[in-house]
Amino acid sequence: MTKEILHQHLQELHTHLIDELLPFWTTRTIDEVNGGFVTHFDQYGNDSGEDEKSLIAQTRSIYTYASAHRAGYGGGALAELARHGVDYLIGTMWDEEYGGFYWMTNRRGEVTNDQKIVYGQSFAIYCLSEYTLATGDLRGIKYARTVFDLLQKYATDTTHGGYFEMFLRDWTLKGPGSAGGDRKTLDAHMHLMEAFTTLYECTRQSIHRRKLLEVIDLLTKKIMHPVYGTGIPQFWTDWQVAPQIKFDVIWGWDRFTNDGVKRAAEDNTSYGHNVEFAWLLLHALTILEIPHEVYHDQLRKSFAHAVDHGVDWKFGGVFVEGSHAGEVYDREKEFWQQAEVLIGFLDAYRIFGDERYWQAYENVHRFVLDKLVNHSVGEWWPLTTRQGDPIWTHMSHSWKINYHTVRSMVQSIQRLDALRVISR
Amino acid sequence: MTKEILHQHLQELHTHLIDELLPFWTTRTIDEVNGGFVTHFDQYGNDSGEDEKSLIAQTRSIYTYASAHRAGYGGGALAELARHGVDYLIGTMWDEEYGGFYWMTNRRGEVTNDQKIVYGQSFAIYCLSEYTLATGDLRGIKYARTVFDLLQKYATDTTHGGYFEMFLRDWTLKGPGSAGGDRKTLDAHMHLMEAFTTLYECTRQSIHRRKLLEVIDLLTKKIMHPVYGTGIPQFWTDWQVAPQIKFDVIWGWDRFTNDGVKRAAEDNTSYGHNVEFAWLLLHALTILEIPHEVYHDQLRKSFAHAVDHGVDWKFGGVFVEGSHAGEVYDREKEFWQQAEVLIGFLDAYRIFGDERYWQAYENVHRFVLDKLVNHSVGEWWPLTTRQGDPIWTHMSHSWKINYHTVRSMVQSIQRLDALRVISR
Repeated sequence: MTKEILHQHLQELHTHLIDELLPFWTTRTIDEVNGGFVTHFDQYGNDSGEDEKSLIAQTRSIYTYASAHRAGYGGGALAELARHGVDYLIGTMWDEEYGGFYWMTNRRGEVTNDQKIVYGQSFAIYCLSEYTLATGDLRGIKYARTVFDLLQKYATDTTHGGYFEMFLRDWTLKGPGSAGGDRKTLDAHMHLMEAFTTLYECTRQSIHRRKLLEVIDLLTKKIMHPVYGTGIPQFWTDWQVAPQIKFDVIWGWDRFTNDGVKRAAEDNTSYGHNVEFAWLLLHALTILEIPHEVYHDQLRKSFAHAVDHGVDWKFGGVFVEGSHAGEVYDREKEFWQQAEVLIGFLDAYRIFGDERYWQAYENVHRFVLDKLVNHSVGEWWPLTTRQGDPIWTHMSHSWKINYHTVRSMVQSIQRLDALRVISR
Repeated sequence: MTKEILHQHLQELHTHLIDELLPFWTTRTIDEVNGGFVTHFDQYGNDSGEDEKSLIAQTRSIYTYASAHRAGYGGGALAELARHGVDYLIGTMWDEEYGGFYWMTNRRGEVTNDQKIVYGQSFAIYCLSEYTLATGDLRGIKYARTVFDLLQKYATDTTHGGYFEMFLRDWTLKGPGSAGGDRKTLDAHMHLMEAFTTLYECTRQSIHRRKLLEVIDLLTKKIMHPVYGTGIPQFWTDWQVAPQIKFDVIWGWDRFTNDGVKRAAEDNTSYGHNVEFAWLLLHALTILEIPHEVYHDQLRKSFAHAVDHGVDWKFGGVFVEGSHAGEVYDREKEFWQQAEVLIGFLDAYRIFGDERYWQAYENVHRFVLDKLVNHSVGEWWPLTTRQGDPIWTHMSHSWKINYHTVRSMVQSIQRLDALRVISR
C-alpha cells in the first residue's frame, strides 16, 4: 500500500459521502408536516409511502446527522437536522407514563407499537449522547441518562447477568419463544456497548464506565465463541446457546426460512457483525483509555475469521454468514456488513500491521463503490447476489436507513486520514 | 405435641414479649434530644454511651416497632415509635446528593461514615415497606422504592448477576480484599430477598416481584450448596466460592481469628442462617403466591441440616457453625441463631409434619427462656457458652438491637397460634 493508493481511496470515499450520500438524505428526509424523518425510499429515491416511523430509523438518523456534524461535515445544517429529529423523538416517541421510547409511530406521530425494545432504547442512548457531544444541547444527554437508568432497573437479569430485550409498554418482560422474553442476544449487548461508550464519552460518570466494562466482559467471556472468538447470535437466559429464531418484533432484515428458523441455527455467525463488534470494542477501549493489547486475542480472532472465511476474493465484498469453524453458508452480500468491515479492516490493519487486512479493505472498498452504491441516487443497494446484482432494491426503510452507510464513510475517512499521517 | 403443650409455649412467648422484651425498648430507646434511637445498652440495661447511630440499628428498630404494631401489639405506641425512627432516618441519614442512606452517624446526627453498604440499604427497604404497611404513611414506601431503584442502577453486577455490596458515598464500587468490592455474600442476598418480599407485599409492582424472583433464583441456584442446600457465606464476583474474610465495614458480630480469617474459611455454614434463609424463602413464596412444594428440596435440606447437626440435644439451643457435610466447628450459642430457628423449626414442622422439628423447637425454646433471656432486664444475652453462661453481656449495640428477638417472638407466636387452630 502506497501513499498514492491511500490518497485515492480517501478521495473516493470523500466524494461519495459529500456528493452522493449526504445529499441523498438532506434533500428528502425531513417531514415538515409531522416532524421527524421520512425514512422509506425506493430504488429511485422516491418516498415509498410506508406509514411508519420506527424508533430505530429515527434514532439512527439522529446519530447519522449528529456524528457527521461532529466530524466536520454539513456546515451546521446536519446539526439542525439532528435537532429536528430530537424534537420528534422526545416530543412524540417518549412515554411520559412509564418512561422509555415507544417502538413505532405512524407518520402523524400516533403510537402504533408501544413496546419497549432494548435494541431501540440502546440506539436512543447512542444518538442522544452523540447529539449532545455534537451540539451541546443538554436535552440529549438528559434523556440518554434516563433511558440508561430505566434499563438498569427493568432490563437487567440479576440472576445470570446481561439484559433481557423484549418488554411491554410498562416494562413487563414479554413471554418466551418468538416474543423473545426467554432469550438474550449478541445484537442487543453489542449495541449496548456501542451506546454506553458514547454515553460515557459524554458524561465521564463512573457508573457509565462500570456498566460499559461489565457489558464488555459479558461479550468477551460469554457471548463470543470461546474457541473462535466469533459472535453467537442467541442465548437462553442462563447463557446456554439457543437456536437462532426470528422474533415477533424484528429490528433487522435478516433472512430466515418461512418457519422463522435459520438453516444452521446453532452454528451460525455473521462476518460483518464480528468485525463491527471488534471495531466497536476497540473504540470503547479508546474512550475508556484501556490499551487494546489487553484484548488482542479477542480482536485478532474476530477480525481474522472475517478475512480468512468471509472475504470474497473472486467477486469482492464479504459474505453474509457461515459456521464458527469457517464454512460459508450464504454468499450473498448485505450492505451493512460491507459498511462495517471497511471500518474494521482499517482498524485491524492499524493495530496488527498485517497487509492482508489492507487487501481485504481494498477488496471491499472496490465492491462497495463499483457494485453496491446506487450512484444514480446516492445510497446503497441493501442486498445483492454474490456478483453484486441487486436482489432487494429499496434505498431505505425502517431498518436500513443511513447509520451504517454514513458512519462507514465518516469513520473510514478518519482512519485513512490517520494512516496517511503515519505513512508520510 | 399436645394442645396443652402448645398453649404453654405460646403463653411463655407472649409473656416474654409483652412483659419483658417490648418494655425493655419502649422505656429507653427514644433519643428525645437528637431524634432516632439510642441503641447501646449494657447488661443492666443502662445506656453504655457509644456515640453512634448505625443504619442497621435505626432501620432494624423501625422494622421492630412497625411490624409489632402491624401484628397488633402496643396499642398505637409502637407505630409512634416507628414514626419517630423514620423521621430521623429520612431527615438525617438520607444522602440528598447521591441518594441512599449513610452507614453511620454519631448521636447528634453528624455523618461519621458516609459509605453506601447494600446490607444496610436492604434493611432500609425492609423497614420502610413494613412501616407503610403498618401505618399507611407513604413516606416509607417512597424512600423504599427509591433505594430499590438505586440498587438496580448501582449495585447489580450485569456481568455475572447478583449484587455487589460495598460502595463509597457516590456509589463507586470499593476495592478488593477487606474493602469487599470483589466479593458477593449470602448475607446481602438473603436480606435483599427479605426486603424485596416486603417491598412487593406493599407495592404489588411487577418489577419488585421479578427482582424478588431473580434473587430467589440466585440464592437457590448459586449461593446455597449444590449438595447440602446449606449457605455458602462468600463468593468472588463470578460466583466461585471465596474464603470467608472479615470486611472493613462489618455489619455483624461474627467471630474471626485475629487475622480476620475463619478457621474453615471455605467450608463453613451457619445453622441459624440456613434456617433463617428457609423461613424467609417460605414467607417470600407466600407473598408471591407460589406453592412451597416448588422449593421442597431446598427447604428440606436447609431445615434438616440444622436439626441433624446444629441442635444441641444435651445443653439446648443451636450451635454457631460447622461444615456443610455436618461436622460442628463452634459449639457456643449466638442469640440471633436461636431467634431464627424458633420461627424456622415451627415452619418446618408445619410443612413437613415431622415431629423432630417440634422437638427441636421445644429444645431451643427452653434454652432461650431458661438461659438466653436476661430476665432481670428483659433482653437476651448476645453470646453464651455451650452450657448457656454469658460470654458477651451487652444487651444491645449497633448490630444486636431488637430485630431478631422481637421478630422471633412475634412470628413464633403467630405460628404457634396457627398450629393451635389446626390441632383443635
